[in-house]
Amino acid sequence: MFLRNHWYVAAWSEDIGREPISRVMLGELVMLYRTEDGWPVALEDRCPHRNLPLSEGNLVGDVVQCLYHGLEFGADGVCVHVPGQDNVPDWARVKRYPVAERNRWVFVWMGDPEAADEAAVPDYSTRLVDPEWITISGYQVVRCGYRLILDNLLDLSHLAYVHARTTGNAALAEDAVLTTEAEGDRVRITRWMEDIEPAPAFRRFGGFTGNIDRWQVSQFLPPSYININNGADDAGSGARGPEQLTSRGKWGFVVYHAMTPESATTTHQFWAVSIPERMVPDAERETFHAQMDTVIPEDTVVYEAQQAAIDRDPDAHDQDANPKGALAIDQALLEMRRVIRRLHRAEQGVAPEPNTGRTLP
Amino acid sequence: MFLRNHWYVAAWSEDIGREPISRVMLGELVMLYRTEDGWPVALEDRCPHRNLPLSEGNLVGDVVQCLYHGLEFGADGVCVHVPGQDNVPDWARVKRYPVAERNRWVFVWMGDPEAADEAAVPDYSTRLVDPEWITISGYQVVRCGYRLILDNLLDLSHLAYVHARTTGNAALAEDAVLTTEAEGDRVRITRWMEDIEPAPAFRRFGGFTGNIDRWQVSQFLPPSYININNGADDAGSGARGPEQLTSRGKWGFVVYHAMTPESATTTHQFWAVSIPERMVPDAERETFHAQMDTVIPEDTVVYEAQQAAIDRDPDAHDQDANPKGALAIDQALLEMRRVIRRLHRAEQGVAPEPNTGRTLP
Amino acid sequence: MFLRNHWYVAAWSEDIGREPISRVMLGELVMLYRTEDGWPVALEDRCPHRNLPLSEGNLVGDVVQCLYHGLEFGADGVCVHVPGQDNVPDWARVKRYPVAERNRWVFVWMGDPEAADEAAVPDYSTRLVDPEWITISGYQVVRCGYRLILDNLLDLSHLAYVHARTTGNAALAEDAVLTTEAEGDRVRITRWMEDIEPAPAFRRFGGFTGNIDRWQVSQFLPPSYININNGADDAGSGARGPEQLTSRGKWGFVVYHAMTPESATTTHQFWAVSIPERMVPDAERETFHAQMDTVIPEDTVVYEAQQAAIDRDPDAHDQDANPKGALAIDQALLEMRRVIRRLHRAEQGVAPEPNTGRTLP
Repeated sequence: MFLRNHWYVAAWSEDIGREPISRVMLGELVMLYRTEDGWPVALEDRCPHRNLPLSEGNLVGDVVQCLYHGLEFGADGVCVHVPGQDNVPDWARVKRYPVAERNRWVFVWMGDPEAADEAAVPDYSTRLVDPEWITISGYQVVRCGYRLILDNLLDLSHLAYVHARTTGNAALAEDAVLTTEAEGDRVRITRWMEDIEPAPAFRRFGGFTGNIDRWQVSQFLPPSYININNGADDAGSGARGPEQLTSRGKWGFVVYHAMTPESATTTHQFWAVSIPERMVPDAERETFHAQMDTVIPEDTVVYEAQQAAIDRDPDAHDQDANPKGALAIDQALLEMRRVIRRLHRAEQGVAPEPNTGRTLP
Repeated sequence: MFLRNHWYVAAWSEDIGREPISRVMLGELVMLYRTEDGWPVALEDRCPHRNLPLSEGNLVGDVVQCLYHGLEFGADGVCVHVPGQDNVPDWARVKRYPVAERNRWVFVWMGDPEAADEAAVPDYSTRLVDPEWITISGYQVVRCGYRLILDNLLDLSHLAYVHARTTGNAALAEDAVLTTEAEGDRVRITRWMEDIEPAPAFRRFGGFTGNIDRWQVSQFLPPSYININNGADDAGSGARGPEQLTSRGKWGFVVYHAMTPESATTTHQFWAVSIPERMVPDAERETFHAQMDTVIPEDTVVYEAQQAAIDRDPDAHDQDANPKGALAIDQALLEMRRVIRRLHRAEQGVAPEPNTGRTLP
Repeated sequence: MFLRNHWYVAAWSEDIGREPISRVMLGELVMLYRTEDGWPVALEDRCPHRNLPLSEGNLVGDVVQCLYHGLEFGADGVCVHVPGQDNVPDWARVKRYPVAERNRWVFVWMGDPEAADEAAVPDYSTRLVDPEWITISGYQVVRCGYRLILDNLLDLSHLAYVHARTTGNAALAEDAVLTTEAEGDRVRITRWMEDIEPAPAFRRFGGFTGNIDRWQVSQFLPPSYININNGADDAGSGARGPEQLTSRGKWGFVVYHAMTPESATTTHQFWAVSIPERMVPDAERETFHAQMDTVIPEDTVVYEAQQAAIDRDPDAHDQDANPKGALAIDQALLEMRRVIRRLHRAEQGVAPEPNTGRTLP
């Protein structure tokens, strides 16, 4: 179940250059490169002549030359030269995808090009390019459907178990007050933990010795973006209310994730942890990097084991979930899945889901 | 074609401990561990909440804690704690499989739990724990359907070709008198070879210099157990009749196999060769181990090449056999396949196969 | 879409000997070996008893003995001995494939054995065994349908891009005069390039310093054979007309390819480049070999990337092509595909394609 009329992250800005690269997005072959002026270009990665991916070829100026028979395509996808003949047939063109670039992410519009709206490009990930912040970031292809990753990021109680060595401890799962809010197609879940023990990373880098107040605000933006504000302060002085959206308190960080489906059961994951420079003393910087780098692999084990288990279940729901029921912690992820189903039905021109009062998985 | 209402070996006793392991049995995800008291437990390896295999988690006493969100399940499969909420919903439980342990094998009942009968646990493999016997044993996942392995063990003429360097020679295939007997759901084939040359292993370890009488009694017990008594004596003094079931003569050994289907075309194989300690002189023990360890890989090549050939045959019968016809040596394995079909039809509530007088594969 | 009533190359002569080998041809398991007298034999590689490939077994004289139960099959595929029983049942036989050997290639007839015609064995590849010629040859299994390789060899404009470091330069694609001819089931395309710059290999080994005339004559013979005559001479003295079929001019070579489908999307490729010995000075021989050895891997990248792209296209035509349209350079390959479709319909007893005037892919 892919939503098409949306901007998806195709690559980190620095991974696109004058050497074309190929990515499968929503099942489609996409070639990415930059023009001589540095503008990112996304074209269908399939020569219309004999199917060779154009990314196997080379750039000649801003034109990509197919490796096989030398057909040349401009950055608009239109063939400008067929070797050995004077005319260029009408069919010699590839799909051009609208492209945008914001805050180190290159976005590609995967739906109807006419509907592409630059104003809709997600630009919340401002700390990725903030010179006063440190960012640890990465890219991986995960063997699971994209919604399993969204589930994870909308239910941070998992830190208590999956990341118990770094950012989590039992209090996160046991003692959190949850507030789930939906606003249009956005979903937000706020986790407030009062007067709890600090998790290992908070102790080490935040310098907490006594109990803390801690907050996590996880926001979902369709089709598959996540933005998490994490903050902590000495117990009794934690930020509450709207302040939680932007304050890190004495120590905290923000997390950005963008998931782009490759196939129904594989996903491109772009992730980042950003933290104000002053919150990580120079002497601790290397250790901080090392710790944060262990977090994503810990989650990846979970995602892929879930997908493998679902693949073995003949009753699985749409290849990326078949829970037997829901818990209180699932409110935000259930709402996220409702939003995606609603948007999908709208794209497909299908009537909205009836409101049965039942909680669907 | 799996038989469900049966005990299957899930693991060697020593392979189950306080670290949960995961096995796919008859297509189902099964987690295995031991309680603090040492009792083996088998649970559905899939958290009902969001599908993570519980075997990814940890034991807290006798309770398994899901790695993802910390749900805790008792050894009966019932959830006893959901972090962050007071009540435990009814759906929060996993299937508990009946378990039994006998002679170093841990058995799991894969069918209706109500029908599990401890008295039916196969316990013929007594030599596995006999202190006066040496046992060489192993476990492997084979890329073939389980019946291809049963075929092999019910037709030991293959020793002449597959194991010519150790336990076989041409006489086994050319000069054997075969007797096939069926008793209820059990099948027995006796191979009697009179006054033949000893195979290499019999010469080396049995110390035979002249001709021998040799016997092999291979017994099948549903769903997929094999028990083989192998004996040899100087020509003219070999054991005959009921004595063949238990006597090794001057030199011989017993073989135990348990096959548990993982999928239609992959199988867990648990195997053992047991021999009276006095029959392997200390100085020969290492060589004996080394020779026996070559036998299973020799068979595995055969099983997997058969399965690959069947996979390429669009006319293949039920994914694990499509012979053009039967030979005299096939009587026992054909009977074994008849028994399995009969039991399968009974489990499915289907009328018995008509007796057409034809030999089905 | 396989053509069955044809001779296919199964192996290079030197790759078949007294150790049986196995090849999957047109989806069928084929075993190949030589009799004691050196005659090649091709049998169905599947024991009719219990499906083990016979190639796992051993030769006893000219008889192959199954590794599993010792059944022995003569070179005619008929079982001559079943161990342990006197009679050999009628069903104990495997398919024997007609075999022929010409010019270092061993051919197998994959259709109705009655229809096998030795006179139809392709024997055009005479330079493979010409003592005055040097041949560089190879074998590989390519992950693409066989027609993608034929396409490549019937459109040599690709040398300009794929082999720009050796046998190609831009002039091959831009300045060629093409003539496509069909004669019965054969297709020939002649490429004539007048007064062009010599490509790197022609400069280095042909010793050209000034411009050249160059010709390439690529011929297709069903089901999947290619024969290419390549020649060059100083500009103004190139060979034209029928002479192009056989003359290399001052410097040139011939290329032979035989493609045997393994499956719809994998292909055995047998390839060779032959050149008159006098055209490669001793001092250059090693470099010439090295250069020619880079050519096939350059093509393989293209074939396999094409197939992977087609596999991702739900609208793909018959798994090995779905172009949006045709170019002038495609005339020969389109004709080749028409011939194959025509022969396939004839084999299947289907009425010929209607002549719609449209160019099908």
